[in-house]
Amino acid sequence: MEENLSLFYGLSFLTAAIAFAFALYLYLWVKKEKVQNARIDEIAGLIKEGANTFIRREYRILAKFAAVFAAIILILLPEPIWQGSIVPNISMVLAYIAGTVLSAIAGKIGILVATLSNGRTAESAEKSLKDAFLVGFRGGAVMGLLVVGCSLLGVAAVLMLTGDTTILLGFSFGASSLALFAKAGGGIFTKTADVAADLTGKVELGIPEDDPRNPAVIADNVGDNVGDVAGMGADLFDSNVAAAASALVIAQSLSGQGLDTISMVFCYSILGLLSSVIGIATARVGGHGNPTRALNSSTYVTTAIFLVLTAIATAFFPGFSWRIWGASSVGLLVGVIIGITTDYFTDDTRPIVRKVAHASASGPAFTILSGTAYGFISALPAMIGIAISALFAYKLCEPIGPGFAIFGIAMAAVGMLSIVGMIISNDAYGPIVDNARGLAEMGGLGEETIRIADELDSAGNTVKAVTKGFSIGAAGLTVISLLGAFMSEVNAALAAAGKPLVEGFDIMSPTVFFGIMIGAAVPAVFSAMLILGVDRNAQRMVAEIHRQFNTIAGLREGKAQPEYGKCIDIAASGALRELIPAGLMAILMTLAVGFIGGPESIGGFLLGNIVSGLLLALFMSNSGGLWDNSKKYVEAGAEGGKGSEAHKAAVIGDTVGDPYKDTAGPSINTQITVVSLVSSLAASLFVAFSIF
Amino acid sequence: MEENLSLFYGLSFLTAAIAFAFALYLYLWVKKEKVQNARIDEIAGLIKEGANTFIRREYRILAKFAAVFAAIILILLPEPIWQGSIVPNISMVLAYIAGTVLSAIAGKIGILVATLSNGRTAESAEKSLKDAFLVGFRGGAVMGLLVVGCSLLGVAAVLMLTGDTTILLGFSFGASSLALFAKAGGGIFTKTADVAADLTGKVELGIPEDDPRNPAVIADNVGDNVGDVAGMGADLFDSNVAAAASALVIAQSLSGQGLDTISMVFCYSILGLLSSVIGIATARVGGHGNPTRALNSSTYVTTAIFLVLTAIATAFFPGFSWRIWGASSVGLLVGVIIGITTDYFTDDTRPIVRKVAHASASGPAFTILSGTAYGFISALPAMIGIAISALFAYKLCEPIGPGFAIFGIAMAAVGMLSIVGMIISNDAYGPIVDNARGLAEMGGLGEETIRIADELDSAGNTVKAVTKGFSIGAAGLTVISLLGAFMSEVNAALAAAGKPLVEGFDIMSPTVFFGIMIGAAVPAVFSAMLILGVDRNAQRMVAEIHRQFNTIAGLREGKAQPEYGKCIDIAASGALRELIPAGLMAILMTLAVGFIGGPESIGGFLLGNIVSGLLLALFMSNSGGLWDNSKKYVEAGAEGGKGSEAHKAAVIGDTVGDPYKDTAGPSINTQITVVSLVSSLAASLFVAFSIF
Repeated sequence: MEENLSLFYGLSFLTAAIAFAFALYLYLWVKKEKVQNARIDEIAGLIKEGANTFIRREYRILAKFAAVFAAIILILLPEPIWQGSIVPNISMVLAYIAGTVLSAIAGKIGILVATLSNGRTAESAEKSLKDAFLVGFRGGAVMGLLVVGCSLLGVAAVLMLTGDTTILLGFSFGASSLALFAKAGGGIFTKTADVAADLTGKVELGIPEDDPRNPAVIADNVGDNVGDVAGMGADLFDSNVAAAASALVIAQSLSGQGLDTISMVFCYSILGLLSSVIGIATARVGGHGNPTRALNSSTYVTTAIFLVLTAIATAFFPGFSWRIWGASSVGLLVGVIIGITTDYFTDDTRPIVRKVAHASASGPAFTILSGTAYGFISALPAMIGIAISALFAYKLCEPIGPGFAIFGIAMAAVGMLSIVGMIISNDAYGPIVDNARGLAEMGGLGEETIRIADELDSAGNTVKAVTKGFSIGAAGLTVISLLGAFMSEVNAALAAAGKPLVEGFDIMSPTVFFGIMIGAAVPAVFSAMLILGVDRNAQRMVAEIHRQFNTIAGLREGKAQPEYGKCIDIAASGALRELIPAGLMAILMTLAVGFIGGPESIGGFLLGNIVSGLLLALFMSNSGGLWDNSKKYVEAGAEGGKGSEAHKAAVIGDTVGDPYKDTAGPSINTQITVVSLVSSLAASLFVAFSIF
Repeated sequence: MEENLSLFYGLSFLTAAIAFAFALYLYLWVKKEKVQNARIDEIAGLIKEGANTFIRREYRILAKFAAVFAAIILILLPEPIWQGSIVPNISMVLAYIAGTVLSAIAGKIGILVATLSNGRTAESAEKSLKDAFLVGFRGGAVMGLLVVGCSLLGVAAVLMLTGDTTILLGFSFGASSLALFAKAGGGIFTKTADVAADLTGKVELGIPEDDPRNPAVIADNVGDNVGDVAGMGADLFDSNVAAAASALVIAQSLSGQGLDTISMVFCYSILGLLSSVIGIATARVGGHGNPTRALNSSTYVTTAIFLVLTAIATAFFPGFSWRIWGASSVGLLVGVIIGITTDYFTDDTRPIVRKVAHASASGPAFTILSGTAYGFISALPAMIGIAISALFAYKLCEPIGPGFAIFGIAMAAVGMLSIVGMIISNDAYGPIVDNARGLAEMGGLGEETIRIADELDSAGNTVKAVTKGFSIGAAGLTVISLLGAFMSEVNAALAAAGKPLVEGFDIMSPTVFFGIMIGAAVPAVFSAMLILGVDRNAQRMVAEIHRQFNTIAGLREGKAQPEYGKCIDIAASGALRELIPAGLMAILMTLAVGFIGGPESIGGFLLGNIVSGLLLALFMSNSGGLWDNSKKYVEAGAEGGKGSEAHKAAVIGDTVGDPYKDTAGPSINTQITVVSLVSSLAASLFVAFSIF
């Protein structure tokens, strides 16, 4: 029943080409806008240069890291070289490198276009909100299209060339390695700069947020780009590849059972990308003039198109199944619902943000306590949503035959991630318009223009909460299917070793329980290390800012330029230095548990890691967003407005929330994926060498 | 091989009688100290009266709650009455009521003695530190002895009279119901009063901590007693009964397999109590004059005596096994190790507390971020400790025969809880000397006396961190064995219904996974509800304090008495009102998951609940203790000392930590036990009536 596979390989390449061509068109469209204001041109240039500095450093360190991993893979994976041929190991290494390189290219170009779009968006805001929206959105959409295009291209090429889904896990691991650097490293970078700029600028010197005298101000703007464009893009590239790879691992194990499962994965991925292309092409601020509605409605349009197109494909191809279509649709719908509930907890037109703002009037301790409490509560609907969609997908696909139930869950993840092109576009829009707002102010573009930029920026913040909830939900379903992929890998290794197969992971087994307990602690320790890393790095940058103000004559009066580059250097090198121990801790814990307790313990480890990781990621992202918007709500005049005690308390809440929502919370996704892939890749080693 | 069982019933009653007689002796010994200072006598009287008010109210509400549960049990448990005889249901109801009543009596007498000892400790401090230590410690030991005596008496009596270990779960559920009220209700009470007293007294009015003009000051002192004496006592009564009950449920299922398992559970419990009696009787401040060392060394003495006595018993009785002795010893040792690592994160002579104090110099956001991060990291050693002890106990006992592995884990929990009499004594010592310190100041007892009281108080704080870590670890192992008990119950119900038995709970099964996800979210939501409850209740009390200062003439000048009783009323009624929704949420979620997904989902639910509950409980208890001690460290002169910016930040950290460490964190234990017992009790209903 795999007669259509070569058709779908071809279509995958064609669709990726369409996405790239459309991205090129958008790039040229954005580029033809001219930047006339010299000041904006200068500062936008500094931001661009800073972002490139970070990316260059990141990729340089990543290259060393990847070289070490490539060597390890070459020797050990998929089988130790002394146990068989070296050919699959070479394929695995090449796939691993391809995974890092494709993600890196998407990130690099995405940053290029984003830093090209910010100044242009600011200037377009002088014409109208509609124009400016389009520049900002299309600038972000380049990243969205590149990420999904590269993902589809890479997955199809690796599978077509090797025919081996295990090699695909190597590709996916490459994507994850990069995501770990881009998301967690970018997260530390952005918050280092943000916190240091606020501490010295607003608190010590009493100068406004985007004041060009502050040496950290450019680093802060760079941070938005490296965190939200490159970081979020790499994170979703990683999720997207992992979802496809794990679905394909399971699909391959089901081949010959009457359904064209592999083709189905490709077909749905292709249709997801096409739907995103249509959604992006039609996105416009309508007559209502509301950019938030424009972003949300193009997401809904993409969702609807995907559901219709996949239904048509399912009806058309004989090897496709309606049950699997149902699983994938449930995944997508639950993703949208998680986004909406996230919005409930973080939108200032809803009661929760207002309650936290009100609690701030009693002092910062109450800001923290109430935000923490609502953050914990906010995790519940998403946890239930993920649980129900997994249960539903499983039960729906169980009647097809043995093994199809877990394939249903994998397809729910593929469904949820189908509209990821649209999601990344929305997310990358955020830092572009945020930068544009700063540039409009620094370039002195006038009140009306700044008001328009403000409105665009505020839409970016609102939509960000939704996309974050979505990306965590997607990671949740993806890692469940990675757990299925892990079991496939373990059983392949056990079968090869002539040992009895694993039927499942029983929580009453002490080796499984052992893994669960440690797996659950890892995301907590990982996020703690990142938070402490931001803290330490911010202290370094504060010292540098003090040095500049003390040694550069005329800086305080605005007569001399600060050395922006020094701050960018500190943020970049510190971010990567702080990130590595956290990443290694997660990987080494996985290996320690695997070599102590064997595959059973790793099954437990992954489960504990997924469950506590999702809980903490949801808690941190949502409470951070909640504090941010509470502060903005107070600044808009509630509870005494700017300068009140409530405002001071709300600012403290926001500072606590910054590394929660932009560093630790979203990096947990990547940590989970990295750990899952390490486990699947090392499955045969755990089978061969564990103590228990 | 159960020839010795009637011997051990007899010895259980005898040992309980010894414990009660010793407690009576200590009570009379404390009582013969005279209180001469009229002011101390008066204030101590107010504290006593306030504590009684809370206990009375709590027990009144609990009586209603228990009546509802008793009615439900009568109709439904262990089997719905329409399916069989009503006799076991009546036994179950009586056991349930006995569980609540015995715990209530222990709590009531414990509070009585604690509130009798505080003033006497203050006055003894005029003689010497050695004398004062002994009064404080022996006052607390009454609670320790009563709790363990009542637990042993109750478990032995219920099992001897009914011969049915399922009825024992009813007794355990009674203990848990009370613990939920005492621990979570007491936790809300104590933090309501603490936070409100600080907010109005220290912050608004600028009067010192224990100033008698503050209407909340008595409520604050009452809170220490209801939280740490009654609450902690009920919590450990609950854990102790649950550990014994689950070990006995499993032991009964192993009867006839060659070992005298039931006798072994009783024998170890008896020897644990005797060891605690010896440890308590010999506790004294030695030549070094250090009360912390006195408390810790009597814990180590108790541990050593227990290990020796149980070794002798294991050698002597032919139906006992060295492997099980090993499991129980590992449990105890891991408990001690968890206590020591907790100490590392919360002791101000160690680096962590100092780092958080140093971070406070950069502002409150850094106090919160660093405390949160170290709190998360601190959970790791305890999680690993629990995981390893469970793995070790299992592997050690697996060779004995089928079913013995899980019995090993249950005996590790029994071993860890064997020295609980000593632990509770140390814990109840805390509020007594804390109160004594306040009374010494209010009674004007002179500098040297206050210095001695301070030293005693500081020892109480240090030891508290250790006992908290210990109690969380004990709860962790207990609930794992409760999971085993749950499976026994499910299989009994399945066998009765003629359905295939459950072999385990596979995490790859979507019904199990569904349960895990929701179970993991419940402790987060439960603790969030308690934190919000403290917040709301503190707001009410602040309003009352404002009212008193505005309407009572002369209060501000110290010429009129405040209405202390009003504040106690608000704390008490508010605490119970805020607690009930949180408790019901946990119970209703359990029932919802059980009736949707059946026993499989509940297995997952319990696992998710245990793992995320332990993680959050450790995080909250430790970060709270860390902030508390960082504040004290700054107050002792570090980072600028009292009044500095670092101090203000550290106070904010402490206020956030208060409900973490004294309300939400320790209540999670109880939530886990309640949920586990509800599951075991309702197992047959889930088997009969679930959707999936």
